Amino acid sequence: MENITSKNNDKIKLAVSLRDSASQRKKHGMFFAEGARLCQDAALSGIDILQLFFTRKAEEKFGGYLNGILPSAREVYIISDEVSLKLSDTLSPQGVFCVCRIPDNDISDFTLVPGGKYIVLENVQDPSNTGAVSRTAEALGLDGMIVCGGCDIYNPKALRASMGAFFRLNIAQSSIRDVAAKAREAGLPLAVSTPDPHARKITETDFSKGFICITGNEGSGVSDEAKKLCDFEITIPMAGRAESLNASTASAIMIWEMVRHGA
Amino acid sequence: MENITSKNNDKIKLAVSLRDSASQRKKHGMFFAEGARLCQDAALSGIDILQLFFTRKAEEKFGGYLNGILPSAREVYIISDEVSLKLSDTLSPQGVFCVCRIPDNDISDFTLVPGGKYIVLENVQDPSNTGAVSRTAEALGLDGMIVCGGCDIYNPKALRASMGAFFRLNIAQSSIRDVAAKAREAGLPLAVSTPDPHARKITETDFSKGFICITGNEGSGVSDEAKKLCDFEITIPMAGRAESLNASTASAIMIWEMVRHGA
Repeated sequence: MENITSKNNDKIKLAVSLRDSASQRKKHGMFFAEGARLCQDAALSGIDILQLFFTRKAEEKFGGYLNGILPSAREVYIISDEVSLKLSDTLSPQGVFCVCRIPDNDISDFTLVPGGKYIVLENVQDPSNTGAVSRTAEALGLDGMIVCGGCDIYNPKALRASMGAFFRLNIAQSSIRDVAAKAREAGLPLAVSTPDPHARKITETDFSKGFICITGNEGSGVSDEAKKLCDFEITIPMAGRAESLNASTASAIMIWEMVRHGA
Repeated sequence: MENITSKNNDKIKLAVSLRDSASQRKKHGMFFAEGARLCQDAALSGIDILQLFFTRKAEEKFGGYLNGILPSAREVYIISDEVSLKLSDTLSPQGVFCVCRIPDNDISDFTLVPGGKYIVLENVQDPSNTGAVSRTAEALGLDGMIVCGGCDIYNPKALRASMGAFFRLNIAQSSIRDVAAKAREAGLPLAVSTPDPHARKITETDFSKGFICITGNEGSGVSDEAKKLCDFEITIPMAGRAESLNASTASAIMIWEMVRHGA
């Protein structure tokens, strides 16, 4: 175990760049995670922990979590409180951080199971929404989630909102074109969700043979490409003020309705 | 129109105390709202706007919103940027604020309509959850929402998350005991939601004759009192990891299922 007390240490600078930049994450094939529970979730889900950083205070307070991470961490560093503040996204950090390898989850490795149920997020921008949807997908036992554009799943805010669901869920980052090709191969209906009340109601949709639902951007909805490639459009029928349902709530209702018959 | 340039102005100090303290809100029967859209929502929903504050910059940028508020504001003040920062909960305020009278919404004024559908939040602590549930309740056309303990609906974070739904929704703050008495009067089934898989499944529950669902605290669930006073317990059947469904998502699925048949 080595000590790091300088904010200018190369490993710290790399970690910060992975925290702040999607392109750095892509370039290095690595991501950054903060928090005792989230880092433990990563380790216990078989994520490759390249570096684990923690403060002496964290060692006392979160020893139980660290015991779950240490066996799988390739490198371990004790960091000063100052370095911890540099690494953290928050004002009062727990003092536990790790740098991990991004697992292979291209669409090419991602299998759509016939009869399976999947949610696709297209250009969803808010990391809290992406994270929240993954939590719901995991809680309700969806077969997988595919992220096409928008916020990447290794964005620190998305990771935090996912509460580790990203690590446990069958998840891929891909393109709508590839999802559509895979859907045809697997014989799965592919739909986009829309606020348009003339679309097929989710209460009148047959989800029993498997389903893929594409949810679009918070402001502009699904793309024209997705509309062209899908089999049909579906909507949540609402008596109230439809426009005020937020993206993660709308997705939660979609996911619930997809799995409802099997529940 | 008067100018306020001092952070120590009595009206500013009162506004800040209303922002920060539930007991001050209760004592004065007033609340504080921030943001051009939210203040306009309050005005257009018939909320009594006692004082409207805005900066010169906000006047230029949010003139459209201010036009919606000015006719119903009893007092109007132009504030300096420094005062705006003092009033704001955020680092880059829009510069529009108001102090409003809390409308009468005791349980005694709150009518439960026979056949109506209501959600009750018992001791929900996180203002974002309280706000998010009100948005969902409004979007899905629920007949009302009752808040028993926990975060009050005039908490600034709850107001923000509600996107003004609090102003438009049939809403009351009350106690579980009063809700139960009103439910019996109106002949409405009263249930508590629980993660217990042995409870009645929401997919096997009859909501057609109206319904009241009590959702509990994020950590400890509903109180023993609520369990004793309710007619039965209901649960969201889940194939996945039930424990990871967050409070506002679970409530959204409950609300959806309650209104689904009428949708």
